[in-house]
Amino acid sequence: MQQTIYLDHNATTPVAPEVIDAMLPFLKEEWGNPSSLHTVGNRAKRALDQARDSVASLIGATDVSEIVFTSGGTESNNLALRGAATAMRKQPSILISQSEHAAILEPADAMEEEGFSVTRLPVDQSGSIDQELLRESLAESDEPVLASLMWANNETGVIAPIHDLATMVKEVDGTFHTDAVQAVGRLPINLQEVPVDLLSLSGHKINAPKGIGALFVRRGTRLHSLNKGGHQERSRRGGTENVPYIVGLGKACELAKQQMDELGQKMTTLRDKLEQGILAVCDCAVVNGGTTERLPNTLNISFEYLEGEAILLMLDDRGICVSTGSACQSGSIEASHVLKAMQLKPSLLQGAVRFSVGRNTTEEEIDRALVAIPDVINRLKDLSPRF
Amino acid sequence: MQQTIYLDHNATTPVAPEVIDAMLPFLKEEWGNPSSLHTVGNRAKRALDQARDSVASLIGATDVSEIVFTSGGTESNNLALRGAATAMRKQPSILISQSEHAAILEPADAMEEEGFSVTRLPVDQSGSIDQELLRESLAESDEPVLASLMWANNETGVIAPIHDLATMVKEVDGTFHTDAVQAVGRLPINLQEVPVDLLSLSGHKINAPKGIGALFVRRGTRLHSLNKGGHQERSRRGGTENVPYIVGLGKACELAKQQMDELGQKMTTLRDKLEQGILAVCDCAVVNGGTTERLPNTLNISFEYLEGEAILLMLDDRGICVSTGSACQSGSIEASHVLKAMQLKPSLLQGAVRFSVGRNTTEEEIDRALVAIPDVINRLKDLSPRF
Repeated sequence: MQQTIYLDHNATTPVAPEVIDAMLPFLKEEWGNPSSLHTVGNRAKRALDQARDSVASLIGATDVSEIVFTSGGTESNNLALRGAATAMRKQPSILISQSEHAAILEPADAMEEEGFSVTRLPVDQSGSIDQELLRESLAESDEPVLASLMWANNETGVIAPIHDLATMVKEVDGTFHTDAVQAVGRLPINLQEVPVDLLSLSGHKINAPKGIGALFVRRGTRLHSLNKGGHQERSRRGGTENVPYIVGLGKACELAKQQMDELGQKMTTLRDKLEQGILAVCDCAVVNGGTTERLPNTLNISFEYLEGEAILLMLDDRGICVSTGSACQSGSIEASHVLKAMQLKPSLLQGAVRFSVGRNTTEEEIDRALVAIPDVINRLKDLSPRF
Repeated sequence: MQQTIYLDHNATTPVAPEVIDAMLPFLKEEWGNPSSLHTVGNRAKRALDQARDSVASLIGATDVSEIVFTSGGTESNNLALRGAATAMRKQPSILISQSEHAAILEPADAMEEEGFSVTRLPVDQSGSIDQELLRESLAESDEPVLASLMWANNETGVIAPIHDLATMVKEVDGTFHTDAVQAVGRLPINLQEVPVDLLSLSGHKINAPKGIGALFVRRGTRLHSLNKGGHQERSRRGGTENVPYIVGLGKACELAKQQMDELGQKMTTLRDKLEQGILAVCDCAVVNGGTTERLPNTLNISFEYLEGEAILLMLDDRGICVSTGSACQSGSIEASHVLKAMQLKPSLLQGAVRFSVGRNTTEEEIDRALVAIPDVINRLKDLSPRF
């Protein structure tokens, strides 16, 4: 049987062997509780400090105390939004975009029900926020603003001009959070130059395991903890630290920093080959977000009049793993909220498929995918009354 | 150099080799996202289902859907308290004891600031709740009650009569949560017979890694999620599931179920030997919670007029790891809130040391500890003006 071709790296990535090797000693021998005052605890604590340094270094944080370890991107986003909003001296209005991840949309919905004012900025057909609308929205707000705008979209890979967006929010003394779960490790990020106050990142998008993430909290940014009960993470996140995964996240950040240029070029080449190959043979294919800057690894294509889920299942049958959008929303019959916000025409909305390559993707796999994909599309067209 | 003697298993436990073996395939080969619809995702999803079954089985839950995986005991406690309180149709009053873990005390403090009424029941000198006081408190409440009373205390090991306490709360139609982080895997628990609605457990207290836990949520108990943004865990806990650790927790629960009787007897024997050995030679030693039923592995002793932290450090110097109380509160100069609630006299309050044995503790280690402990106590007595 042929090896599976995994083209769903925005959903999750394999754990890098170097990450597993780094973690194993902390599963096997160094299993102490970092809060314990004895030697066994102290050794675990030192490992945390080193990992914090590696995470800070990847994103250009100047102070390791700005890194708060969490259980993942979703927790980081929830902590950022609710933790910052409740810690601000005056209740803020919340400003997000319509194309945020559910881990921002849903906390924002819940906070709106509790009395927070929430503005959801539209995006244009390219997936970008209209900066003029953002400026107007900021000017209109009577309350301090807590803005959360994602660095790179998980479904389309569209990259936001975070420096400009953050600068606009800081100009009105707002607090700026960015969900950078898909951007960290794939794009150069230097928080010494970009004025974000809070940034979420996730381990399992960068070849660390699922269940670990971090929130960057710039010095001076007020934050209330959500997990209360313990002084861990300088009282910003209670609970015994997941030492092995924190060590793994640190190692994954080191690898990402070392390999970003090389892997970025490789992934862009493979993604572009896949994109051009599909467009060349599938006349019903349209690239979503294709007119703007995108993550090097992400390709979101709508196959007009077809069903993304049918494509997914038939590709899976041929050993190729893709997704129709966010894994966190899979199983939902709703069309992607991201693509709806981009005002895709109805004939394109249901037929979206996300291909996302990773560090181990090979040219041979892309070649094989480029045989299977037109085959699947043609079979589905044969079955469709539209063609 | 002699091997370290680790007598701090209530702070954290080593990961069992069987648990590591169970997890490794899910770090190495089966790293899929359980939410993904393709084959790689499906295989990960099946592993979750099996682990859920093992956790349910250890605590006698009848329905695997009653198990919600979390990032640990602290998150489970926060989710139980806030998630249940905000989901109840009428705002409840919250009833806890003074000897709860910080992961209950601190969320309760925060909720009190937000307008919830919070009652903190005292405990008696044995560490037990006065059931008459509980009954009165329940009778006085005009609001529905959300009670959270721990199954076994982390510092003293004192076991609460959870069946009776839960029954009293259920008689007034209250919701009953128990922090069973120290009890699960050490005591037989059968939730078909004990009417608790919510129960917190933690992996790293039962030889699974730090960073995984679960909340039992009885069918019909309303609960709002805290980590929002994703339909994972039936929308009760958003975020990509930590598959390797969930598998590890499942394995740890299987082991605990198989070995509970045998290990319980072994730990009781070793703990009793340690206790009697210390009492026989240290006339300044008093067992805290010694007059009531305790966890088989836990021994909390106050050495009158001495400092627990000094004892800890001198024992560490001799290769013996113990704690002065909760690891989550370590580094604090405050005396233990648990021992204060038990009204220990001031001369005993600062001199408390917790010894907690584990599955790998040997009689030879206890023998060695029984040489070192009196030596340390005598040296400290020599330095103290009190003796």
